[in-house]
Amino acid sequence: MDYTAGLDAALNRLHEEGRYRTFIDIERRNGAFPHAVWTRPDGTEQDITVWCGNDYLGMGQHPVVLAAMHEALDATGAGSGGTRNISGTTVYHKRLEAELADLHGKEAALLFTSAYIANDATLSTLPKLFPGLIIYSDELNHASMIEGIRRNGGAKRIFRHNDLDHLRELLQADDPAAPKLIAFESIYSMDGDFGPIEAFCDLADEFGALTYIDEVHAVGMYGPRGAGVAERDRLMHRIDMINGTLAKAYGVMGGYVAASAKMCDAIRSYAPGFIFTTSLPPAVAAGAAASVRHLKTDQGLRDQQQTQARILKLRLKGMGLPIIDHGSHIVPVIVGDPVHTKQLSDMLLDGYGIYVQPINFPTVPRGTERLRFTPSPVHGPDEMDRLVNAMDALWSHCALNRAELSA
Amino acid sequence: MDYTAGLDAALNRLHEEGRYRTFIDIERRNGAFPHAVWTRPDGTEQDITVWCGNDYLGMGQHPVVLAAMHEALDATGAGSGGTRNISGTTVYHKRLEAELADLHGKEAALLFTSAYIANDATLSTLPKLFPGLIIYSDELNHASMIEGIRRNGGAKRIFRHNDLDHLRELLQADDPAAPKLIAFESIYSMDGDFGPIEAFCDLADEFGALTYIDEVHAVGMYGPRGAGVAERDRLMHRIDMINGTLAKAYGVMGGYVAASAKMCDAIRSYAPGFIFTTSLPPAVAAGAAASVRHLKTDQGLRDQQQTQARILKLRLKGMGLPIIDHGSHIVPVIVGDPVHTKQLSDMLLDGYGIYVQPINFPTVPRGTERLRFTPSPVHGPDEMDRLVNAMDALWSHCALNRAELSA
Repeated sequence: MDYTAGLDAALNRLHEEGRYRTFIDIERRNGAFPHAVWTRPDGTEQDITVWCGNDYLGMGQHPVVLAAMHEALDATGAGSGGTRNISGTTVYHKRLEAELADLHGKEAALLFTSAYIANDATLSTLPKLFPGLIIYSDELNHASMIEGIRRNGGAKRIFRHNDLDHLRELLQADDPAAPKLIAFESIYSMDGDFGPIEAFCDLADEFGALTYIDEVHAVGMYGPRGAGVAERDRLMHRIDMINGTLAKAYGVMGGYVAASAKMCDAIRSYAPGFIFTTSLPPAVAAGAAASVRHLKTDQGLRDQQQTQARILKLRLKGMGLPIIDHGSHIVPVIVGDPVHTKQLSDMLLDGYGIYVQPINFPTVPRGTERLRFTPSPVHGPDEMDRLVNAMDALWSHCALNRAELSA
Repeated sequence: MDYTAGLDAALNRLHEEGRYRTFIDIERRNGAFPHAVWTRPDGTEQDITVWCGNDYLGMGQHPVVLAAMHEALDATGAGSGGTRNISGTTVYHKRLEAELADLHGKEAALLFTSAYIANDATLSTLPKLFPGLIIYSDELNHASMIEGIRRNGGAKRIFRHNDLDHLRELLQADDPAAPKLIAFESIYSMDGDFGPIEAFCDLADEFGALTYIDEVHAVGMYGPRGAGVAERDRLMHRIDMINGTLAKAYGVMGGYVAASAKMCDAIRSYAPGFIFTTSLPPAVAAGAAASVRHLKTDQGLRDQQQTQARILKLRLKGMGLPIIDHGSHIVPVIVGDPVHTKQLSDMLLDGYGIYVQPINFPTVPRGTERLRFTPSPVHGPDEMDRLVNAMDALWSHCALNRAELSA
């Protein structure tokens, strides 16, 4: 058996399709976000501006977050030293869980090492708790939800993206007595569109289903206390399980599920992905708690982010660039071809010091390859001018299509 | 559908079997390991000694680790701000991967947020790279390996623990042309026994199989540079994929796989659990790299740990306690009943300030419930005296069996 040939074949498929990923080695400068230093493969360095990060509000350099992390490091050391059950539960973890439960108006919250594993572990454990559970899942749900839903071979129904009629059809076709769960996102991160949360909740009520929302690209950024879109729309109490991350707008690391005390207790007790993994370092938990707490009141940062996103969309639209605008903070510019997308990204980085990673399949469907910009409160007017001018120049240089200006 | 009743039923099963887990809330004191403060549910505090942590060498309080973390926090902020592909690769991640590749004498290493997800993501991705792959898995492999092997429904064969004849039988029964992988651990953490690494490698050679080893409870602690049991036994070059953790002996957080450059490249490119998750915080990567680097030369810490483990086993054995001793650093004392194990643990904590978590099903098989001690260089003679005396007193008090002293 020639295993090397197998690896070559797998890697060649990616090269041939132009979607082999090259990681860009960067180091952001604390206090100077979104500026960073790019280390090229040959070791030389260049100052760049990061335009594709998910530290949406710049909290990764916020003094309250960094102070909390330094303090916890000094007080209790580096790692937690164990799983949550075996010596790895600390006051920092408990405080963060309390902070998150309060944020979402739920009885409890459960920390995971990432929102990926929170989705995967929770959704794969629910069929153990509710035998016969059918999960209704939006076709564009994140990979982590798909993995969790598929993992144990439980019953699943995939409904067309945001299609309430299709979801209703599927619900109607199943045994009314079967336990059910509707799983969806509040903001789909690649298009930046919103899920119809209220209508999902109505359907859940009608068919006796639980609701599960992924607010990973919304927590910290939407709602008066940053609890997400469900909070903004006053629907949080109608959602049974809320999944969120501490690694994007909160600027640190980790993920969680907020739900009833019994639900969290059951997941905690039955999910291998929770039970058998070392808990977050106390310093990470401390930093995340400080960030969550801070963003419960700092509406200014949220407003600035929305303003920056509106301005960038307006300017790119004004130049006729094919952007997707659903009114969220995410600004995708469709290129539609993996090779062109990679070339544009390379030219922006090499020629302009602007870093925006090409987004290819499987992260987005083939044919919708894109550049995805994430404007934030730390991107000032100068950075935005440079980005808009560079995009304008490259679009002309590459003779790419522009939309009708009236569109 | 009454979902609350479902949760009640699931939780009651645990209570009835005496294996409902209660997390103990502790905060270790940096500079004073293994001492910690236990916060009781009523909010009162007590000084305790941690005897069940997996920070096996006390690296979580080592100045080189903490300095590296403080420094990275100051330089680059809290989180990485993205997945590895989208703005989340930093010099810290690259340096750590280089450090790990060097440690294991492999061309490359790939970081994950935990060794759990490293096992799960890698083992579930391999069948995509080698269609028709059959995975031969030791029956006592860690939950994360089991989850990874089961995830995509690929072919698997479970062989009896460490049973080479059984493994040979299974290998012989399959198509000689089929791609194969033998997956095992170097140290099984609950009994502390070793896998027959060389014999597994011989079988792999004979049957043209790849080898995959989990060295999670060995890295940092075995081998002249701390690369694990395979290094100690001069077998590292015969292992195709080495899984390790940065959260136990290295005292921080995260996991990895070390392998050939092509293998790492393929896993990196195809594993959803790698692609779709925020990378480790740079400060965590910096701390872990400092720890790995330090332990490449600090043989003294490794020797101290082995000495402490030998002394503890000798003393507990001398009192006739039913310990398992396979010559590793792990000291399990079998109680054999979940309720008694929990009671002993509670009495040690309440009465003696000694924290050792009860280990119950599903972490260990039913009927082998145990207390599992992890002596380390930071446990001094006084701490050991207190532990041994407490165990002696409780064993008498509870009229538990002692082994024949000659056993």
